[in-house]
Amino acid sequence: MSEQTVQIRTSGKVLQSPCGPIVHGLEDVLIKNTTISDIDGEKGILWYRGYRIEDLAKFSNYEEVSFLVLYGRLPTRSELKEYERRLKSSRDLHPATVEVIRALAKAHPMFALEAAVAAEGAYDEDNQKLIEALRVGRYKAEEKELAYRIAEKLIAKLPTMVAYHYRFSKGLELVRPRDDLSHAANFLYMMFGKEPDPLAAKGIDLYLILHADHEVPASTFTAHVVVSTLSDLYSSVAAAIAALKGPLHGGANEMAVRNYLEIGDPSKAKELVEAATKPGGPKLMGVGHRVYKAYDPRARIFKEFSRDYVAKFGDPKNLFAVASAIEHEVLNNPYFQQRKLYPNVDFWSGIAFYYMGVPYEYFTPIFAVSRVVGWVAHILEYWENNRIFRPRACYAGPHDLQYIPIDQR
Amino acid sequence: MSEQTVQIRTSGKVLQSPCGPIVHGLEDVLIKNTTISDIDGEKGILWYRGYRIEDLAKFSNYEEVSFLVLYGRLPTRSELKEYERRLKSSRDLHPATVEVIRALAKAHPMFALEAAVAAEGAYDEDNQKLIEALRVGRYKAEEKELAYRIAEKLIAKLPTMVAYHYRFSKGLELVRPRDDLSHAANFLYMMFGKEPDPLAAKGIDLYLILHADHEVPASTFTAHVVVSTLSDLYSSVAAAIAALKGPLHGGANEMAVRNYLEIGDPSKAKELVEAATKPGGPKLMGVGHRVYKAYDPRARIFKEFSRDYVAKFGDPKNLFAVASAIEHEVLNNPYFQQRKLYPNVDFWSGIAFYYMGVPYEYFTPIFAVSRVVGWVAHILEYWENNRIFRPRACYAGPHDLQYIPIDQR
Repeated sequence: MSEQTVQIRTSGKVLQSPCGPIVHGLEDVLIKNTTISDIDGEKGILWYRGYRIEDLAKFSNYEEVSFLVLYGRLPTRSELKEYERRLKSSRDLHPATVEVIRALAKAHPMFALEAAVAAEGAYDEDNQKLIEALRVGRYKAEEKELAYRIAEKLIAKLPTMVAYHYRFSKGLELVRPRDDLSHAANFLYMMFGKEPDPLAAKGIDLYLILHADHEVPASTFTAHVVVSTLSDLYSSVAAAIAALKGPLHGGANEMAVRNYLEIGDPSKAKELVEAATKPGGPKLMGVGHRVYKAYDPRARIFKEFSRDYVAKFGDPKNLFAVASAIEHEVLNNPYFQQRKLYPNVDFWSGIAFYYMGVPYEYFTPIFAVSRVVGWVAHILEYWENNRIFRPRACYAGPHDLQYIPIDQR
Repeated sequence: MSEQTVQIRTSGKVLQSPCGPIVHGLEDVLIKNTTISDIDGEKGILWYRGYRIEDLAKFSNYEEVSFLVLYGRLPTRSELKEYERRLKSSRDLHPATVEVIRALAKAHPMFALEAAVAAEGAYDEDNQKLIEALRVGRYKAEEKELAYRIAEKLIAKLPTMVAYHYRFSKGLELVRPRDDLSHAANFLYMMFGKEPDPLAAKGIDLYLILHADHEVPASTFTAHVVVSTLSDLYSSVAAAIAALKGPLHGGANEMAVRNYLEIGDPSKAKELVEAATKPGGPKLMGVGHRVYKAYDPRARIFKEFSRDYVAKFGDPKNLFAVASAIEHEVLNNPYFQQRKLYPNVDFWSGIAFYYMGVPYEYFTPIFAVSRVVGWVAHILEYWENNRIFRPRACYAGPHDLQYIPIDQR
């Protein structure tokens, strides 16, 4: 093979090494072409398959949006009906998966979710068929159909896994999925055992819409690396969940709500935000974003929803009031203005969760329930033009050390 | 942040896109400096921490080699003794992990291993402590000590997970680990319920030494991406297992043995190798390597061992005879000579496994049992200078499509 030199632009840190430049964290390095989602970080715009998320949040629901993300276009009414039917018929879990979740009832749900996804994949017959084909390098029309079917099953089953873990963790009876409820409403129904308030279901639906995809953050990138070996979709999604679990990725909305609770009183916002501009001062959770240098478009939508939610149900813990006060200070503070640090989606998305009674540990699992469609859509896109990820590390140590017998060391 | 342009050399395929060059599979892109292992693909040399693997295979064992890979130097006698004591005391699994493995008794062991590692991490108290610290970004001396302790536990526990799955899959009683056996011998003991023949234990030990690390293939890279979010070591190793599962990564030694069985007779080797040089001809499993353009140094060592093994126990299925005949043809065939395609480690490593009675499905799990030390060593190395992996994808689709109501589509 002939060697090529390529020029790569990055805004990230470049480390020099004897072997050449290291783009730390692969910041801005391109891994593929995509038609799934796009972000304009300067203007604060997010598109799924070319549609602005504002339109999708206003007119659509998670079922339709997940179809769009997965298949690349909006469904016709009959396509959507069929798709919804398939999702509903796949909501149940294999008994072994239920056993695995039960065994992990006392653990953090993200671990249970990793294990449950692997378990479900272990017994899914479609998955076994696809694995057999991939083992001999076959990925044609029939295999693609299997892969899309598996992708839909993952979308359908993740909410059940999360809800079942919640039930087990509380020592409650499992609540089986119901065919007559939407994806979002059924999720809350399985969690809490009663039909949810329509505004709560709307909140979950909005959250799921807004988190469905976001180009290639670490979890989505993990999914790519795993499937590039022709490993299976379940294993890849389990690995993506492992990455999402990290506090630098998922988890910021939980920290934001904990912050608001701790602060408790909107009048303290000015002092807090002022302190956050000082070296060694507190960090404001949910402010600033690696890609957005403008107001996060998802944050704007979820802020409006949170306002509606507390207008209906009240704001007994002052979460919305405190968040609003912090936002006001941040938007009017030169420190944040100059650095283009704006509230992001995590700043607002935890408030309604908290008031719905969703425990903190389930915030990131619900992120996974939404993002799973992004993961599988990216996997299937990458498989259209697959190449195993095999970067290099630059060796910076000694060579040919002499092995000295243990008693002479 | 200011934008920089860096020049990257690659021997891989470069795709052009509107956003810039895409190095497909990140081939040759450097992700970090390392002092763990180095490969000279042209000369066929592999070093761990500066030591040639030939020396380690001859003089050392997996316990000492895993200490070397993890801690960066050979242990003193007392350090090794303490390290072995810690490994032995960590061989047992949490009851929940055993439950998870039991629930997946009828599944492929790689799925069970993914789930079991996540389960063990879910309940490990050291892991919970480390997770709490990482959540607030703390990784100092105390946390590093926890991380190394967890790394050792993963090394200690993976053999038990694999062996327990084998026992469950056969409907056999579990065989608890024994403190008076080496890492390799104890593994075979837990699998088969009797003290292994010393030559079989030596074979497992050699295999574990030779697979302990190999710079940053897809599984090790996956581990990096997951921990770069400050997720935990167990989740990261579970994700690495998910990548290793792919047939483009682990699994080639199984395919090689299946091939030898199918061929059955050394006299057919010439014809087979000749056919493999033709377009559309059969693929020779275990021949050629993405990095080695010379005889794989691990293959040479395992070939010698396989010869010793069949000299003692016989070669009733002609596996060694067939492999030797294929190798002879490959080494003397201009097609393979010109392309620098040599037998790699997978060409030889499955033969002894087969004769020991290890079922095919457990070949890749044993790879994981060895490589786990490489994964955790790389994780800990990366955490010394962590940055979240956040590459980009180049958007190649439309923008601002109009949302059309469903009945007008």
